[in-house]
Amino acid sequence: MSKRIRKIVCLGGGTGASVVLSGLKKYPIDLTAIVTMFDSGGSSGKLRRELGILPLGDVRQCLVALSNERNLTPFFHYRFEKGGLAGHNFGNLLIAATIGATGNLNKAIEKTVKILNIKGKVVPVTLEKADIVTILKNSRRIKEEEEIINCPQISKIGVKKIFLEPEVKGNPKAISAIKNADLIIIAPGKFYTSIIPIFLVKGISEAVQQSRAKKVFVCNLMTQVGNTDGFSVEDFLTILEKYLGKDVIDYVIFNTGKLSANQIKEVRKVFSKADFIKHDESLFTRENFIGADVIDRNIRKLDPADNLVKGANKRTIILHEPNKLAKIILKLCPLEVLGKKFSFRKFFARH
Amino acid sequence: MSKRIRKIVCLGGGTGASVVLSGLKKYPIDLTAIVTMFDSGGSSGKLRRELGILPLGDVRQCLVALSNERNLTPFFHYRFEKGGLAGHNFGNLLIAATIGATGNLNKAIEKTVKILNIKGKVVPVTLEKADIVTILKNSRRIKEEEEIINCPQISKIGVKKIFLEPEVKGNPKAISAIKNADLIIIAPGKFYTSIIPIFLVKGISEAVQQSRAKKVFVCNLMTQVGNTDGFSVEDFLTILEKYLGKDVIDYVIFNTGKLSANQIKEVRKVFSKADFIKHDESLFTRENFIGADVIDRNIRKLDPADNLVKGANKRTIILHEPNKLAKIILKLCPLEVLGKKFSFRKFFARH
Repeated sequence: MSKRIRKIVCLGGGTGASVVLSGLKKYPIDLTAIVTMFDSGGSSGKLRRELGILPLGDVRQCLVALSNERNLTPFFHYRFEKGGLAGHNFGNLLIAATIGATGNLNKAIEKTVKILNIKGKVVPVTLEKADIVTILKNSRRIKEEEEIINCPQISKIGVKKIFLEPEVKGNPKAISAIKNADLIIIAPGKFYTSIIPIFLVKGISEAVQQSRAKKVFVCNLMTQVGNTDGFSVEDFLTILEKYLGKDVIDYVIFNTGKLSANQIKEVRKVFSKADFIKHDESLFTRENFIGADVIDRNIRKLDPADNLVKGANKRTIILHEPNKLAKIILKLCPLEVLGKKFSFRKFFARH
Repeated sequence: MSKRIRKIVCLGGGTGASVVLSGLKKYPIDLTAIVTMFDSGGSSGKLRRELGILPLGDVRQCLVALSNERNLTPFFHYRFEKGGLAGHNFGNLLIAATIGATGNLNKAIEKTVKILNIKGKVVPVTLEKADIVTILKNSRRIKEEEEIINCPQISKIGVKKIFLEPEVKGNPKAISAIKNADLIIIAPGKFYTSIIPIFLVKGISEAVQQSRAKKVFVCNLMTQVGNTDGFSVEDFLTILEKYLGKDVIDYVIFNTGKLSANQIKEVRKVFSKADFIKHDESLFTRENFIGADVIDRNIRKLDPADNLVKGANKRTIILHEPNKLAKIILKLCPLEVLGKKFSFRKFFARH
C-alpha cells in the first residue's frame, strides 16, 4: 500500500463544493478546489461590473470552507446592509482588495490562502471572463447566470445547447491539478449555472477524460425550480455526460435519506415547488451507483441580507452532510485512505 | 525598582499616533491608543454618512501600527479605485463589517485586535458622533473636520473657539486608561482636527489632569498650511494648554533635526508653503523641553488613490522616526524602562 498523499480535486460552485471540501479537509490529503467562475448576480456580479474582475462568490465560499483561521473567517459571509456597500459581502471585498493590490486573481487567492491559513488549494477554472448562454429547445436564448437561474421554463421547454460566450481557456493550474489527481469529485450545485459550465471551459473535459483519477459525481438532493424540475439521478448523469463525455464518470453518489414531515414543511416554505430528486430502484443493483443517507438534517437558515443586491440567488437550504459525504468519497479513492476495504453494499439499503 | 509593566497611553489621530505606537510596541509595556473620532472626509466620512457608523480611519491606522499579523495587514491601506467602492480602503471595510456583524464599535475593535494579533489596546475617545466646529476671530463658523483642514485662513484670522457639536461623553474605557496610566503621550497630528478635539470630549481633559501619569506632548514637525502657519513649539503648547489646562504637560518633545536641501525640495513639491516648526533658543535651557533629532529622513510617498473620495486629506509626508521617538518617550516614564538613568542634556545639543 502506497504511503503517497492522495490528490483529490473537487470541481464545483460555492455552496456544493464547500460542503464537499469542509468534510474532506479534516483528512491528510492534497485537496484542490476547482471553482466555477460565471456568477453574474449579487455582490459578485456588482464587483464584476464595477471593478472589471472575475466573479468571486464561489471562490470565496471555497476559501472559507477550507479556512483554519478562526478570527477573521466568521466575517467572510457578512453582508453590508446600507449605502454603496449594500449587498456586498466582506469576503468578496477582501479578495477584491487583494486582486487590486497584487494585480491578478491567482496571486490574490495565494494571499488569501495565507491569510486564512488554508492547507488546500483554490483554483478558478478559468482566469478569463465569460457568460453562460443557454439555447432552449424553442430557440429562446438566455444569457447570464442570474437570468438562467431565474428562468422558470428551462426544464419545461428543455435545453438544446449551453455554451460560454466568449469561449474561454482553462486555467493551466486547474488542468494540471485534474490531470494529476487520484480522485475527481463533481460537487453538487446549481446544475446549469455552476456545474455544467465547468466542462464548457476549453481543456477541462479533456483533462478529466484523460486523467487516470476515479471520477465521482455527487448528485444534488433537490430539484431546482425552473431549471431541473422533475429530474432524476439518471437525468443529471445523462446531461452531465453530454458535456463531459460518455462513460467518464466512475461513481454516482445519490441520496436515499428522508426528512421528517416538519422538516419538509420548513423546506416548502422557501421552495414551494422543489422536490427531492428521484431515482430508479434499479440503481441499487448497479455497482457504480452509491445510494446513501447523505442529507444534513440541520436545515440552513437564509440570511435576509443575501437578497440586497439584484440578482442574488436564493440559496439552497438543504445540504449534504459533509462528514458522511467525505467518508464515502474517500473510500472511492484508488489508494486506501481509511485502512480497510470499503463495501458499497452496506450503503445500498435505504435508510 | 518596580517590575510592574508600565501603562502608556497615547492620545492622537491616525498618522501621528501610529508613528508613536509603532516605535513603542516593540517594548514590554501595556500600550493603549486613545483615538480621535471626528474625521468627516474620505472613506471614513463616506462610511459615516452611508452606514451611520463612527469614522474609522484613525482607528484603522492605529490598529495597523500595532498589528503583528503579516498576511492580512499589508492590505489594510489598500484603496479601491473604481465603482461604488472607489476611495474606500480595505481596513475601514473590515472594521465596518465587524461593526455590522457584532453590533458595536467596541466589540468590532476587540475582534479586529484578535484578527491582527495585537497586544495593545485601541480605544475610541468617544463612542458618540460629533463634528468639530471652529469659530474664527472674525466670527466665521467652520464645521466638520475636512472643512477646517481645507480652510486657508484659520491661522491668519485666528481661532476664537473650538468645540464639538453635539457635546459628547468620553468613552469610559478611555477615561479609565488615562486615569491609570504611568505615562500619557499626546501624539503629533493635525492640531485643530485630530489633537485639540480629543480634549473637547467631556471627561478627557479632567482625566488627564487627574492622572498621576507624566504627560508628554510630542510637537509636530511642520506647520499645516491654513491651520498652523507660522506656529512655534511654544504656540502649540499655549493653545493645547488652553483646552487641556495650564501646567498639565510635563514634557514637550520637539524636533531639532534638519533635512538636506534635496529632501526639502521634495517636501516643497507637495507642501509648497509648509515650514518646519520653529522654536525659541531659550527652550534648550528649560528642563521640560526636549529638543532632539526625531525626524524620519525617509520621505513618505503619497498614494494617488488617497484622493479618490471627496474630502480625503492630503497626508503629511514628513514623519517622526518611530524608534528615536520611542526611546526618548520611554526615558520619561516615571518607572525605569531601559535600566539606566536618562539625561535630557544630551538631547539639547542641536544636530
